[in-house]
Amino acid sequence: MELWYSENHSEDVKFSIRVDKQLYTGKTDYQRIDVMTSKEFGTFLTLDGLMMVAEKDEFIYHEMITHVPMSVNPEIKNVLVIGGGDGGTVKQLVRYEGIENIDLVEIDRAVVEVSMRFFPGMRVGFEDKRVTVYYEDGLKFIRSKRNEYDLIIVDSTDPFGPGEGLFTREFYGNCSKALNENGIFVNQHESPYYDNYANSLVRAHSRIKGVFPIHKLYQAHIPTYPSGHWLFGFASNKFDPLEDLDADKWNKLGIKTEYYNTDLHKGSFALPNYVKELLENA
Amino acid sequence: MELWYSENHSEDVKFSIRVDKQLYTGKTDYQRIDVMTSKEFGTFLTLDGLMMVAEKDEFIYHEMITHVPMSVNPEIKNVLVIGGGDGGTVKQLVRYEGIENIDLVEIDRAVVEVSMRFFPGMRVGFEDKRVTVYYEDGLKFIRSKRNEYDLIIVDSTDPFGPGEGLFTREFYGNCSKALNENGIFVNQHESPYYDNYANSLVRAHSRIKGVFPIHKLYQAHIPTYPSGHWLFGFASNKFDPLEDLDADKWNKLGIKTEYYNTDLHKGSFALPNYVKELLENA
Repeated sequence: MELWYSENHSEDVKFSIRVDKQLYTGKTDYQRIDVMTSKEFGTFLTLDGLMMVAEKDEFIYHEMITHVPMSVNPEIKNVLVIGGGDGGTVKQLVRYEGIENIDLVEIDRAVVEVSMRFFPGMRVGFEDKRVTVYYEDGLKFIRSKRNEYDLIIVDSTDPFGPGEGLFTREFYGNCSKALNENGIFVNQHESPYYDNYANSLVRAHSRIKGVFPIHKLYQAHIPTYPSGHWLFGFASNKFDPLEDLDADKWNKLGIKTEYYNTDLHKGSFALPNYVKELLENA
Repeated sequence: MELWYSENHSEDVKFSIRVDKQLYTGKTDYQRIDVMTSKEFGTFLTLDGLMMVAEKDEFIYHEMITHVPMSVNPEIKNVLVIGGGDGGTVKQLVRYEGIENIDLVEIDRAVVEVSMRFFPGMRVGFEDKRVTVYYEDGLKFIRSKRNEYDLIIVDSTDPFGPGEGLFTREFYGNCSKALNENGIFVNQHESPYYDNYANSLVRAHSRIKGVFPIHKLYQAHIPTYPSGHWLFGFASNKFDPLEDLDADKWNKLGIKTEYYNTDLHKGSFALPNYVKELLENA
């Protein structure tokens, strides 16, 4: 028999993966969660029918969302991750000995439980003593925080479901307040290619721009995400992701990566003209 | 009714496009040619069921295969394009006033005829006096050429059909002989992500490496190609694509582009670690 998982990247484009077996399906107060295995991508997890992590290439997304800010300021000690219940982001963060504390705020406890169960390779972050998991709404969690964090990473779903609030001006403003004067804010920033994603991208960018004086986007090749062309946002009151990159310092840490390197760091901020034009109109 | 074009990016991954109408289908001595219209990508052309050009994003591939070499040596005067019967590459080339001659060698006359008919926007190259089209096998055409060209662009199909010979050591050696001492060789170089494409990539690279002392790869985000992560090869006896880039000079030409810019030029050569490892083992 043939079993295919299909995801609409736009109304008129479909991406399909041959599935060996559906390992899990469940519905929570927030979303539907599915886990499947496939020959091409290994085990993968979807939320409301959108690809979140696949064993084959989760390293691309998680390396790019963590090592870019960490290499701009390797002195980062106190980190807040909003979303990221699959563990991929904290897995990368706990590799830094200098990090003293990581708060992970995931609204949906089931995402953590399911990920721990089906992605043993991504569990290591949750087992680290420096990591505290809060099962709360990130939007509310952040409101009371002032000058606390060196880094906030927003590792959210798309702004179409429970992740919606994490793309609002109010949220970005609260993140700015929760960061100390050295603070860096990084978020997954959608794709420029298909209209529905590009609209989210432009909206998010126009809001972040109003909050942080330094705000740049960088890109990565993530084949399991719509169009494979994915963007991340880097924002700060102090650090410029290119001028303040100390490549030697990061390379001396000896962190072995499969996607990220400091040359690629610089290259990833060089955006195509059509993307720059999208952002200028934001 | 629903009409979908589907392409297997690997045995277990399928990419599907909702089609408005099939405008053309034909079979030549070399391949099957289809032209369809779609809401998402506009008109698109496939050869043997593989996506070649789509109105929406053909600019990405064609800008990256031409402007990268042209900005490294804006003095280029004599160009050979092998393949490229859709006209997208010569459309970009004829924008350079300094180019005096372009030979385009396309094995399949029908590709040119069909493209001229259904992609009026890409016809401009064929209407330029400096362009001569030869309906021949590029592999044979190149054999008798010595020290003639400043630039050879191999704008071929994948090495699974009529394009196969354009990925051989013999062909690369003949290209090297056909180039003058300033010569640059650029080719479409497949994708690193899915095994079948990555194998072609590694094989091609190991052969080119044996022929040209300078050989580097660069990447672009092309969502309509498998994985969206596409590579190009840059090879030369003389020019290094990064050290010899004169960004100011190219920018002064005032060529308006939708994807390419000289920052992105530099960034596109910064490859992910997993791709670099693939190539080191080549």
